[in-house]
Amino acid sequence: MSDFSDESAMTTHAGPHGYISSKDAYVKRLRRIEGQARGLQGMVADELYCIDILTQISAMTSALQSVALGLLEDHMSHCVAAAVAAGGEEGDAKIKEASIAIARLVRS
Amino acid sequence: MSDFSDESAMTTHAGPHGYISSKDAYVKRLRRIEGQARGLQGMVADELYCIDILTQISAMTSALQSVALGLLEDHMSHCVAAAVAAGGEEGDAKIKEASIAIARLVRS
Amino acid sequence: MSDFSDESAMTTHAGPHGYISSKDAYVKRLRRIEGQARGLQGMVADELYCIDILTQISAMTSALQSVALGLLEDHMSHCVAAAVAAGGEEGDAKIKEASIAIARLVRS
Amino acid sequence: MSDFSDESAMTTHAGPHGYISSKDAYVKRLRRIEGQARGLQGMVADELYCIDILTQISAMTSALQSVALGLLEDHMSHCVAAAVAAGGEEGDAKIKEASIAIARLVRS
Repeated sequence: MSDFSDESAMTTHAGPHGYISSKDAYVKRLRRIEGQARGLQGMVADELYCIDILTQISAMTSALQSVALGLLEDHMSHCVAAAVAAGGEEGDAKIKEASIAIARLVRS
Repeated sequence: MSDFSDESAMTTHAGPHGYISSKDAYVKRLRRIEGQARGLQGMVADELYCIDILTQISAMTSALQSVALGLLEDHMSHCVAAAVAAGGEEGDAKIKEASIAIARLVRS
Repeated sequence: MSDFSDESAMTTHAGPHGYISSKDAYVKRLRRIEGQARGLQGMVADELYCIDILTQISAMTSALQSVALGLLEDHMSHCVAAAVAAGGEEGDAKIKEASIAIARLVRS
Repeated sequence: MSDFSDESAMTTHAGPHGYISSKDAYVKRLRRIEGQARGLQGMVADELYCIDILTQISAMTSALQSVALGLLEDHMSHCVAAAVAAGGEEGDAKIKEASIAIARLVRS
């Protein structure tokens, strides 16, 4: 399923993860992004103009960021909010974890 | 070949565009990015943990930025440098065009 | 106090805002960033090498982002968590508001 | 003049550095950014609402990026173009150096 080498190290929490209501929409947006990556290979193979390729990469990066921001909001509205509402340390841990993910998005 | 709706509006300058020497390497990196986009669809479909998905999106964004920065350097070393060395207004125009692409990368 | 033209339009919620415990540390970091902005004026006035100026701007941008990420985490740990724990629509509104601020940080 | 600890390590090339024509405009923009940093200290000291502070940090980051992009374009139009036009290895070195600065801007 995946090209990510460190996937085995990932925490794969059980249970539904909050974004399920719009799962199809996210899959569709990611499929379009996959198509953009394929289109870029064609542009490079055909030696199209470099600046045009960069324009498409910027568009693809924006689309990817937009997916990330949507997933993050869903995550905070569901997982984080549920943990906070339940009380205890889990809420703090979820907020800390989300903050680390946000820092990574801001810096990437 | 492409998912980009505005491709017909693109300037497709004739001739080799400078990055040809490492064309295969770029295509390979973009193919890997395409695989990451496909992997992300699977992660969403399987409802993996949102934070893990965001981590992979950050990795994919970095990979994409890295391709863009490589292409930009190649472009400046070849197209821009050739235009500047030839003298005349074309050099200024190429630098202006590259600056606009850089601003888009910085802001996306 | 401020150079921001749209400040009059800002919501200035009453009461302590969560980051008070480390207020002095934030003020100190921002004072250092102010010093960096002053240093940059000197570098431009003295016509120092452009690349060196850009290096300092990158350092200053990173310092500023780091303050923003710290404030955001404090805000989520205090204001957002309190609103969510209290129940009702206020929690959702705070998460939505934080998400908009995050999107602005990611895109700026 | 400066708060930067590594300034002594900087290359301070002699001679005018290309952006001199608009030096006053850059100094003015940086002075305004300095004022924003001072305004932020007041906002934190007065415990204004965290989201409003983040909005101002985003505005300040954008202003700073805009200065960096302007300086970079000036640098390419003058220093880099002059080195390329003169022929020899210096042109390549300048392009390589500019590419590293661009990568730092994109990633910061």
